[in-house]
Amino acid sequence: MLVIGEKINGTLKKTAAAIAARDEAFIKDIACRQVEAGADYLDVNAGTASSREPEDLVWLIEVVQSVVDVPLCLDSANPAALRAGLERVNQVPMINSISGEAGRLEGILPLAAERGCPVIALLLDDNGIPGGEDGRLEIARRIIDRTREAGLPDDQVFIDPLAMTLSTKTDGAVVAINVMRCIRSEYPEVKFSIGLSNISFGLPARSLINQAFLAQALAAGLDAAIIDPLDQGLRNMLYATELVLGRDRFCRKYTSAFRAGKIKI
Amino acid sequence: MLVIGEKINGTLKKTAAAIAARDEAFIKDIACRQVEAGADYLDVNAGTASSREPEDLVWLIEVVQSVVDVPLCLDSANPAALRAGLERVNQVPMINSISGEAGRLEGILPLAAERGCPVIALLLDDNGIPGGEDGRLEIARRIIDRTREAGLPDDQVFIDPLAMTLSTKTDGAVVAINVMRCIRSEYPEVKFSIGLSNISFGLPARSLINQAFLAQALAAGLDAAIIDPLDQGLRNMLYATELVLGRDRFCRKYTSAFRAGKIKI
Repeated sequence: MLVIGEKINGTLKKTAAAIAARDEAFIKDIACRQVEAGADYLDVNAGTASSREPEDLVWLIEVVQSVVDVPLCLDSANPAALRAGLERVNQVPMINSISGEAGRLEGILPLAAERGCPVIALLLDDNGIPGGEDGRLEIARRIIDRTREAGLPDDQVFIDPLAMTLSTKTDGAVVAINVMRCIRSEYPEVKFSIGLSNISFGLPARSLINQAFLAQALAAGLDAAIIDPLDQGLRNMLYATELVLGRDRFCRKYTSAFRAGKIKI
Repeated sequence: MLVIGEKINGTLKKTAAAIAARDEAFIKDIACRQVEAGADYLDVNAGTASSREPEDLVWLIEVVQSVVDVPLCLDSANPAALRAGLERVNQVPMINSISGEAGRLEGILPLAAERGCPVIALLLDDNGIPGGEDGRLEIARRIIDRTREAGLPDDQVFIDPLAMTLSTKTDGAVVAINVMRCIRSEYPEVKFSIGLSNISFGLPARSLINQAFLAQALAAGLDAAIIDPLDQGLRNMLYATELVLGRDRFCRKYTSAFRAGKIKI
């Protein structure tokens, strides 16, 4: 599973302050720590006002690329910011995100298709997030029609089924898992990514809930997740679940991760 | 899920010594600690030679019942020991175990049926443990034919699909999970129990692997597990997985377990 590090995010207070103050050391530090902890991609989200966002996102990209070599996941709903960012990346980035919203399909999908970038696609549209499975599946079908029309191969589309907060929706995880299973049987090449931690919002011992959800989502075919790679519990569960699901021949990944200190209890 | 505490087991060295020395304090201590940690049943296994086993099992039962109130899971392949034990229990016990072996079906099943005891049924027979799913399903069908003939209702039969050690069989957990799903669709009333920790034998950080397996087995419908209830990581995962699977309305079980200190990180 691809680990997309979530921590360079201007909607978080400290990161917002670092962006405003052009504090390179702060950004470099969270970039390096995430990559050391195993991030395959780093999400970069400037989170600033539309007019400032292109400049802020470019600054973030340049600072991050000055210290790490992983590809980025450009996280913005702003085509101007994405366009500016795409000019500066050293490797093909992932784009986070399109959805069933007309604005995103028109403004962002062409940028991704033109450069052959993988995209994350959220199962919501201009009417919001459907509570049930059928509504989300219907949006998934519409999005995939559009990504195909745009010439983006199915295996470059990472559907995020949207895991709703369990404290307000008891079946929030179950719906997401079922949606994944249905989409996989209908579109075997389409991939899945998930913003994992939303599920546990407002509950205690959040990492545990995220771990339990990760285990279920991996079984349903999760290919990528936007997570905090510094969360040791999540990393442990990732290795152990791949092992239990029979995806780790001779237990090699698990035992070498343990020997390398990547699994800790 | 029913937690069956595994720690009173004469095949373990210290417990064997305590049984031989009639060390009541040792047995009482592990009985009390398991129940405090949330065990719903306590497994009692004398593990001694056939001729001594009836007397040893009765001693264990009496010592355990002198300090805790939970029902027992009488763990023996010896009909004489089980018969002696059944005379002394204060509550209807579970019997661990029958299997497809002729000796167990003839010697143990009638005892369970006569007293209306739930039984654990292992998916092996006189030819051993089938490696694949079909062989285990075939044994399950034969066992259920026999438990029905004996008058034991399906919901008193806890099938153990047998999780093979991952270090020697990469698909050991996957086969067990698939077998559970097949049996549930064919016999919706039949229950499942699993001896959880075998899966991780010989591997490091075993509790983690057991946790990942517990998460998958719960999703497949696990009803009971023979585990170490003192393993905090497993208890955490049990609460978090029930929550993620949508089985904890308004997150009440999870949040009250957290407040009561039963979930710890």
